[in-house]
Amino acid sequence: MTAPREKSKPLKVALAGAGMISWYHLVGWRNLGARVRLVAVCDPDAAKGARRAEEFSIPRVYRDADAMFAAEAIDALDVASPRETHAGWVEAAAARGIDVLCQKPMTPTLAEAEALVRRVEGKLRFMVHENWRFRPWYRELKRWIAAGELGEVLLARIAMISSGMLPDESGRRPAFERQPFMQHEERLMIAEVLIHHLDVMRFLCGELSVVGARAARTIADVRGETVAAIFLETAAGAPVDVMGTMAAAGYPTRPPDRLEIVGTKASAAFADSELRLLGPSPRSQSYDKDRGYQGSFDGVIAHFVDCLESGAPFETDATENLATLRLVEDAYRAAGLPGPHKGV
Amino acid sequence: MTAPREKSKPLKVALAGAGMISWYHLVGWRNLGARVRLVAVCDPDAAKGARRAEEFSIPRVYRDADAMFAAEAIDALDVASPRETHAGWVEAAAARGIDVLCQKPMTPTLAEAEALVRRVEGKLRFMVHENWRFRPWYRELKRWIAAGELGEVLLARIAMISSGMLPDESGRRPAFERQPFMQHEERLMIAEVLIHHLDVMRFLCGELSVVGARAARTIADVRGETVAAIFLETAAGAPVDVMGTMAAAGYPTRPPDRLEIVGTKASAAFADSELRLLGPSPRSQSYDKDRGYQGSFDGVIAHFVDCLESGAPFETDATENLATLRLVEDAYRAAGLPGPHKGV
Repeated sequence: MTAPREKSKPLKVALAGAGMISWYHLVGWRNLGARVRLVAVCDPDAAKGARRAEEFSIPRVYRDADAMFAAEAIDALDVASPRETHAGWVEAAAARGIDVLCQKPMTPTLAEAEALVRRVEGKLRFMVHENWRFRPWYRELKRWIAAGELGEVLLARIAMISSGMLPDESGRRPAFERQPFMQHEERLMIAEVLIHHLDVMRFLCGELSVVGARAARTIADVRGETVAAIFLETAAGAPVDVMGTMAAAGYPTRPPDRLEIVGTKASAAFADSELRLLGPSPRSQSYDKDRGYQGSFDGVIAHFVDCLESGAPFETDATENLATLRLVEDAYRAAGLPGPHKGV
Repeated sequence: MTAPREKSKPLKVALAGAGMISWYHLVGWRNLGARVRLVAVCDPDAAKGARRAEEFSIPRVYRDADAMFAAEAIDALDVASPRETHAGWVEAAAARGIDVLCQKPMTPTLAEAEALVRRVEGKLRFMVHENWRFRPWYRELKRWIAAGELGEVLLARIAMISSGMLPDESGRRPAFERQPFMQHEERLMIAEVLIHHLDVMRFLCGELSVVGARAARTIADVRGETVAAIFLETAAGAPVDVMGTMAAAGYPTRPPDRLEIVGTKASAAFADSELRLLGPSPRSQSYDKDRGYQGSFDGVIAHFVDCLESGAPFETDATENLATLRLVEDAYRAAGLPGPHKGV
């Protein structure tokens, strides 16, 4: 526990980045009601910023970070901008003692993240917005595991198989309509998508290491890898398989994950939006996929604010999150994919 | 195509080994009707042999191989005895020019199998009874793949997760009641169970190599490993995951496999005894699990007899099957499990 800093009540928050994902952030902030106040939004695209400001009654819109920091008294910054801008935002906030909740991936590469964490250490409280593990079904499963209901993990597997990057009946590609940057991202399936699943498996099974990985680029006009599989082990040597693609013909465009964990006492499975405990005391719980999606944003944001108020450590503190980025980097290395190009 | 040898019509067949699995063999032979005739059964346990002889109207029962070979004119031998006796049976048959259909694993280790194949080469036709790939759903899926319906394989996964080695409500362990030798087998989950899945994935996806593997012994009075996962790649580098355990609390005791293959054109899934083609021209087919189980024995045995009659090569020729045994050996090595003990 670190002593909480002196903050405004309500907490004054600014949003950096007004793209697609910021909608879910802003709903999350709004759900905290009077505990927080969104004071400003900043995006180089003024129209995007203005739209979010109007939708969520945010008083001021900025295109430039310096202008925003000069004019506003901000307690916390929510960084939802493109990944290559994250470090700049975090450093600017750190220089002003503003705490940060920063979207994943913290930076495009592990090396940049490690350097960033070193540079800003002690200057701010810095949490990564890794929201997948905040999906309600994973929270519940984690409670089962923490309560010892599964015993030791013997084997685990998770898959995210969708058709999102393939043309639908109208010839449109839902994943790229939703998140256009994905089409041009050099590190795609592992660094952008399966990073979540690696983090979920760390969350559920404890620290992991990469045993092997394979990945491939399978769509001509998509820059990054579109198919990947990562084989890992727990600290005790139990196998963990993480597999995914968004280029699977015939699959839904955004299906929920499918997960299985076999433990020494009981097993658990999540499929078709239903979480099941299998074994001596079976039970199950159904979830609404879309509510769970928003719920994961709500959960992350509430956790950030709770920890700022209480001084408790963030579950996905930047330093903690480096372990997930290490798995991403190890997976690329194991798959024989080169590090990201710089320039040229 | 090798010229078919001169055989009796009907083909005179002897069965070596009258244990649990021989029932399914004998149903398979019986289903060939007048094309074959079971002339003898041989098992060191005379009662077991006599029981099968009675059930299937087999004229003579032997406890000793030499006695059987001396007394009977046999065209083909069906070896369903314990694995450590296979090589002896095959060599005895080879010495007499009797063709062999031999249960998997051909021998306890790859080295023994390679030596056996070298020793008997040219002396008999030698097929391995690797029946899993003869399950009707895998035959159908193979037809889809061979017809190019899936395109290139991008990613594949198969799992066999059951509770068969755990005590049921009456405290009995169904897997060991069914196949008692399993409890004492040194190489269990990979060499006995997932050997089938490795072979199925070779059958469906082409030659594979092992990237990594993990395995663990998790039941105190079970000698071999009870949990295993093997991460492989196709010749083109696509990831293939093979995972299994029979120690998963809450799972059925003998559930069918669950398989997914994502291809460049379409995907395929087998789950809940239903085979589905996913993509532009979706279709599906349901199977009866128990009929499919027997059907795989029928298919292997019919294939053996067809090839003896036509001279066509066996799909699971002993030499071909060495590739599956190599994956088994590579998986043990990758999992860090020692080779089988000899003596001591």
